[in-house]
Amino acid sequence: MTTTPFKFELISQDGQARAGVFHTPHGDVPTPIFAPVGTQATVKSLTQRHLKELDAKLILANTYHLYLRPGDDLIAEMGGLHQFMSWDGPILTDSGGFQVFSLSKTRKVDEDGVTFKSHIDGSTHRFTPERSVEIQENLGADIIMAFDECAEPYNRQYSEAAMHRTHRWAERCYAAKKRSDQALFGIIQGGVFPDLREASAEYIAGLDFPGNAIGGLSVGETKEEMHAMLEIVNSILPQEKPRYLMGVGTPQDLVTCIKRGVDIFDCVLPTRLARHNAAMSDNGRMNMMNAQYTRDERPISETCTCYTCQHYSRAYIRHLIQANEMLSGTLLSIHNIHTLLDLACNLRKAILNQQYNEFAGKYLSNFTK
Amino acid sequence: MTTTPFKFELISQDGQARAGVFHTPHGDVPTPIFAPVGTQATVKSLTQRHLKELDAKLILANTYHLYLRPGDDLIAEMGGLHQFMSWDGPILTDSGGFQVFSLSKTRKVDEDGVTFKSHIDGSTHRFTPERSVEIQENLGADIIMAFDECAEPYNRQYSEAAMHRTHRWAERCYAAKKRSDQALFGIIQGGVFPDLREASAEYIAGLDFPGNAIGGLSVGETKEEMHAMLEIVNSILPQEKPRYLMGVGTPQDLVTCIKRGVDIFDCVLPTRLARHNAAMSDNGRMNMMNAQYTRDERPISETCTCYTCQHYSRAYIRHLIQANEMLSGTLLSIHNIHTLLDLACNLRKAILNQQYNEFAGKYLSNFTK
Repeated sequence: MTTTPFKFELISQDGQARAGVFHTPHGDVPTPIFAPVGTQATVKSLTQRHLKELDAKLILANTYHLYLRPGDDLIAEMGGLHQFMSWDGPILTDSGGFQVFSLSKTRKVDEDGVTFKSHIDGSTHRFTPERSVEIQENLGADIIMAFDECAEPYNRQYSEAAMHRTHRWAERCYAAKKRSDQALFGIIQGGVFPDLREASAEYIAGLDFPGNAIGGLSVGETKEEMHAMLEIVNSILPQEKPRYLMGVGTPQDLVTCIKRGVDIFDCVLPTRLARHNAAMSDNGRMNMMNAQYTRDERPISETCTCYTCQHYSRAYIRHLIQANEMLSGTLLSIHNIHTLLDLACNLRKAILNQQYNEFAGKYLSNFTK
Repeated sequence: MTTTPFKFELISQDGQARAGVFHTPHGDVPTPIFAPVGTQATVKSLTQRHLKELDAKLILANTYHLYLRPGDDLIAEMGGLHQFMSWDGPILTDSGGFQVFSLSKTRKVDEDGVTFKSHIDGSTHRFTPERSVEIQENLGADIIMAFDECAEPYNRQYSEAAMHRTHRWAERCYAAKKRSDQALFGIIQGGVFPDLREASAEYIAGLDFPGNAIGGLSVGETKEEMHAMLEIVNSILPQEKPRYLMGVGTPQDLVTCIKRGVDIFDCVLPTRLARHNAAMSDNGRMNMMNAQYTRDERPISETCTCYTCQHYSRAYIRHLIQANEMLSGTLLSIHNIHTLLDLACNLRKAILNQQYNEFAGKYLSNFTK
C-alpha cells in the first residue's frame, strides 16, 4: 500500500499527550485535533466559509449516508467529495460499519460482510470490506477507515468474535485498497475487555496502517472503562502513527483522552447540541432557551473569539430560538465547533509548553456540568 | 419634524426611472434598491456577514412581529434593533398596519386604532398611530412608517374610508414622532381606484414627509392595475423624495416599477422561495429539487457571482434538499437575494447610462416564467 503523501510528525510529548502534524494531500492536520462531522457532506447549517473561518483542519463525512444518498458513484462523477461539498481541506470518511451495526434490527452479519436495510426507504443493501473501500475510494477522502464490526461493549463473546472478524476484515480492506492518495486506518475493537483490547491493538498495529483508530468506545461504557481501554491500546500502538478515537467527544473527553495519547477526535455533539439550543462553554453547557438570558446583553462566552460571540448577544440568540428562526442553529454551531477547535488548539500549545497537566487540571476544575 | 440626517439626492433620470442616494444615519442607500426582509430581526438563515458580503444596503424588519416577540421594550433595552441584530447599516420598519389588517378575522378597527389578537398566543393587543410610532421609536430603525389601513383593493367604499383614515392617522403619526434620527414615511392608499390614488398621493405629499410609500398594492390586483396606480401616484409625488413600493417584488416587478419611478422595494420572496427549494435566475425560477439537476455540475447560474454559485453545484444543492439539510435554505437565500440586489444595481447603472429601456427590454425578454 503506497501512502507517500501521508506523513505523521511527532513534534512534542508531555507525558502520554502528543503534539504532531499529519500531512495529507489536502493540507496539514495539526494534532491533537477535533474534526467536525458533516454526515451528509455538510456540517449541518454551516457554509464552507464558516468552516474556514473556524479554522477547521479536518472534517468527517459518513460513508453509510453518502452511499445511500446521493450515492458514491454520483459523488465520484461530480469530482469526489472535496469538489462536491466545496471543501479543499482534509476529509476523513468512516467505513459505514458503525452505522450499519447501529441498525441492529435490520442487519445480518456473516463472515463475508453485512446485509442491511436502508433507514430511508427500507431497501436492502450489502457492505463487505471490499465494497466499503470501493465506496470510500469513490468518495475520495484523504483518510479512509477499514470496515469493522462494533459489538455491544459488555458482551464478551460477541466482542471477541467481532474483534476477530474486524481483524480479518482489516486485512481484506488493506488488500482491496487501490488509490495511493488515501490513507487507510485500521480499527481496534474489543469492548471493555483488557485482554481483547491488547490483542486487537497488537494485531492492528502489526498490519502497518499509516494510522490507527480506536473503535467501539463511547458506546455505553463508563468513562473509567474508556480511559482504561485507551491506556492499554495506546501503550501498544506505534508512536510514529496518528491515533484516532472515533465518535468522541465532549470538551472533557478531549482533555482526558489527549492525556492518554489520542491525536484525532470527531463527534456530532457540537452541531447536535446547537440544534437543541445548547451552547458549549468552558464552564459547561448553557440552555439558551432559558428565561435568564431574555435580557442578557453578553455574548454566550465573554472570552470567546468566535463570530457568534463577537456579534450576537445571549438575548438575541434566545429570541431566535423562541421565534423558531433557523439562524440560531447556525450561530450555535459556529460557537460550539469553535469551542472544541479552540480547546484542541490550547491543549496542543500546552503540550508544546510541557504544561499539559496544569492546563488540563485547571480546565476541568472550571466545569460545572 | 426634524429630519436633518436624511437627504435624498436625485442623481439621474431616464424617463421616469430614477437613480439617487438616500442618506441615513447608518449609511447611504443607493436607489433604486431592494431591501431583504428580516421579519423577526433576522433575514432568515443568513448571518449579518452574509448580508454584508451580499452588499445589502437596507434591510427591513416587521413591527408587528417584533412588538409581540421579543417586545419593542426589550429591543430598546438591548440598545435598539441595530445592536440587537448586529446590523450597523440602514434599517426600515413597517408600521404593523399591514400585518394587523391581514388578521382579518380577529381584528377590529375604529377611528382611534385597531384591536387585534396575537397569532402566537391569541392575546389581545391594540395599535394606534401613536403606539405604532412609539414602538418604532423603541425599535430605532432609520426609516419608519406611518400607521395605515390596507383595504381590499376592489372594494370602493372600504378603500375610500380606509384611505381617509390612513390620512388622518398619517397626521397623527407625524405629530407623535419624537426622535430626530428616524425618517417617517407617509403611506398612500386608495385600492385600484385612480381618483382615490390621486387624492391620496396629493394628501400625503402635502404632509411633507422625508419619503413617501405606496401601500395596498401587490395584494390581489393585476399587474396592469398596479402599474396604472404607480403612474398616477408617481406623477404627483415630489421628485426630491424617495418613493417606496411596499411588499414588492419579483425581478420583473423591479424592472417594470423602477421604470415607473419607484426607488425602494422590499419583499420576502427571495428567502421564502429559498425555503421552498426555488432558485431565482435571470431566466425565471428553478425548482432545485428537480431530477434534472441530480448530476448537474454547473452552478445555479453560470454568470452569477454570488458565494453559492462560486462554490456549489446544482447537484450539491439538490442533494442538500433531498437530504433535508438546512444549508440548502442558506445557499438559496444567498443566491436569491444576490439576484435581486444585483438586478437593482444593474438597473441603476442603466439609468445612469440612459439605457434603461434597452436593458429592461432585454432583461424581460429573457424570462421564461
